Amino acid sequence: MTRWGIVGTGKIAVAFTEALRVTEGSRLVAVGTRDIRNAARLTRLAPEVRVHCGYQALMRDPEVDAVYVATPHTEHRSASLLALEHGKPVLCEKPFAINHSEAADMVRAARERGVFLMEAMWTRFTPAMREVVRMVADGTIGQPRALVAELGWYSDPDPTHRLRNLELGGGALMDIGIYPVSLAHHLFGRPVGIAATSTRATTGADEQTGAVLTHEGGQLTSLMCSIQVDSPAHAVILGTGGRIEMDRWYNPTAFDLLLSDGSRIPHRFPHRGNGMEHEAEEVSRCLAAGRLESPLMPLDETLSIMETMDAIRSKIDLRFPADAIFAG
Amino acid sequence: MTRWGIVGTGKIAVAFTEALRVTEGSRLVAVGTRDIRNAARLTRLAPEVRVHCGYQALMRDPEVDAVYVATPHTEHRSASLLALEHGKPVLCEKPFAINHSEAADMVRAARERGVFLMEAMWTRFTPAMREVVRMVADGTIGQPRALVAELGWYSDPDPTHRLRNLELGGGALMDIGIYPVSLAHHLFGRPVGIAATSTRATTGADEQTGAVLTHEGGQLTSLMCSIQVDSPAHAVILGTGGRIEMDRWYNPTAFDLLLSDGSRIPHRFPHRGNGMEHEAEEVSRCLAAGRLESPLMPLDETLSIMETMDAIRSKIDLRFPADAIFAG
Repeated sequence: MTRWGIVGTGKIAVAFTEALRVTEGSRLVAVGTRDIRNAARLTRLAPEVRVHCGYQALMRDPEVDAVYVATPHTEHRSASLLALEHGKPVLCEKPFAINHSEAADMVRAARERGVFLMEAMWTRFTPAMREVVRMVADGTIGQPRALVAELGWYSDPDPTHRLRNLELGGGALMDIGIYPVSLAHHLFGRPVGIAATSTRATTGADEQTGAVLTHEGGQLTSLMCSIQVDSPAHAVILGTGGRIEMDRWYNPTAFDLLLSDGSRIPHRFPHRGNGMEHEAEEVSRCLAAGRLESPLMPLDETLSIMETMDAIRSKIDLRFPADAIFAG
Repeated sequence: MTRWGIVGTGKIAVAFTEALRVTEGSRLVAVGTRDIRNAARLTRLAPEVRVHCGYQALMRDPEVDAVYVATPHTEHRSASLLALEHGKPVLCEKPFAINHSEAADMVRAARERGVFLMEAMWTRFTPAMREVVRMVADGTIGQPRALVAELGWYSDPDPTHRLRNLELGGGALMDIGIYPVSLAHHLFGRPVGIAATSTRATTGADEQTGAVLTHEGGQLTSLMCSIQVDSPAHAVILGTGGRIEMDRWYNPTAFDLLLSDGSRIPHRFPHRGNGMEHEAEEVSRCLAAGRLESPLMPLDETLSIMETMDAIRSKIDLRFPADAIFAG
């Protein structure tokens, strides 16, 4: 049984709380918050959890076996380092950090202390996505050549909103673009070529970003993310012998395999919960096996993904105040 | 009645011949070829047509009211100029030319001589696409913000194949990428920002190209084309109040309108033929009205599209021998 503590009480913390209820071998025992009033939504869902004032108190809770970091992006590093210092295994929400430099600090701390750390790229752990990745690796669609993936959610255009606030690492790329970037790495490895451009909010945050990645094996990824529009979240993985089509691909419960002979074979993998249960179960599996990293989401890959995110930001000239700390 | 002559006897000439059989107010009367043996497939379909040896003879045929240029890309300019010199209205296959400079020659010749000229971007004239464009312009999906469109056809990887031959303007971008580039211009106008990258055949031709365009109104286009894989040809036009989803969007007979309230409204516009009948009818309409350009595919837009194609090629460093003629 993994007894969980959550750092933060926002929307994603509430979603993880819901997921834990249907997660095998997991139980939520505590939550850490800086403002007790923010915990109300979460504690209504899980009245039995201990609410700690401040993150430090949560880390000292001896009944917490693992910590889920659900703070805003800009606090992923500090919250994860705090947990690691206390010897708590960490599942850190995506994007893992603001930039590669922050991510490297976190990975270094985990490795130095010999404590488990994993990026909470939940989509990767779903049974549907695992089967997709297996099929692609096995040559089911012939030679995989390309990935086309889009993802967009309409969000409040208010310039003071978190998603448009550069102080909080706002914008489409960090919040949404991380999903297709991660999938591209998962399927084809790190990119060798990157092109990107974006449209911007008045605050400077990117409202829409498109990027094209080319990979060492000659594959190409075309991705687009938006905080201005709700999208169907279509993804298609294209091979010389067929293709895989997914809707709502970031949280897949189904996909269609299309073969060159024209056949379309639907595959269905219903969740028990909202989909986050699969990443929580991965953490339990790893802890039970004494692993310090997930073989499905290794830390070197997380670092490589952050490098790609930095490179895309460089192409679109998107800088965050948090970058400055590490500059020069 | 528009009496047509076709320059060239390849696959696209055969497709146009098929389309003319169901085109209102059109009839195929003649074809010009440099090698009479190549005309067999076309004349089996239309045994009554006159076969001229050489393009010049076709242009002199007094019964030909309009000429469809169906040669390889690299001969679009010379064949179109020849027709225009003979006062024949021209429908020129896409891509209109190898580069903007060639296209400008063609447009100049048409305007100087006062002869009709139009790019055969057939997808634009289909009833389904016309309705899509009307809806987007009318605000049916709120503020349009983005277009995501992919298109790929598996083709013979033989490096000597036309599609991989730089001498013939080969590669995915020129043959296939022109479709989403044209649609982006049609919906959002000329781009103000362009990013692109590609993967290459051993010949240097692009096998896959991804590009991102940003437009003056803040819209973003994410496009991808391939000659390595068969794709579903998904396109989605994303707005703040809904979206339009299309399959086989380059030859649309249907699309779905999705509104913010969750409703999905299918629209169906079956073709009479293979879809090319609509561009032929546009030519007849224009000629009957005494127009020298189509209001749906004006020459200035064709020129602007060629500029974008040149700019994407510059980003991916894709040069054709035919470019050199106009360099410096």
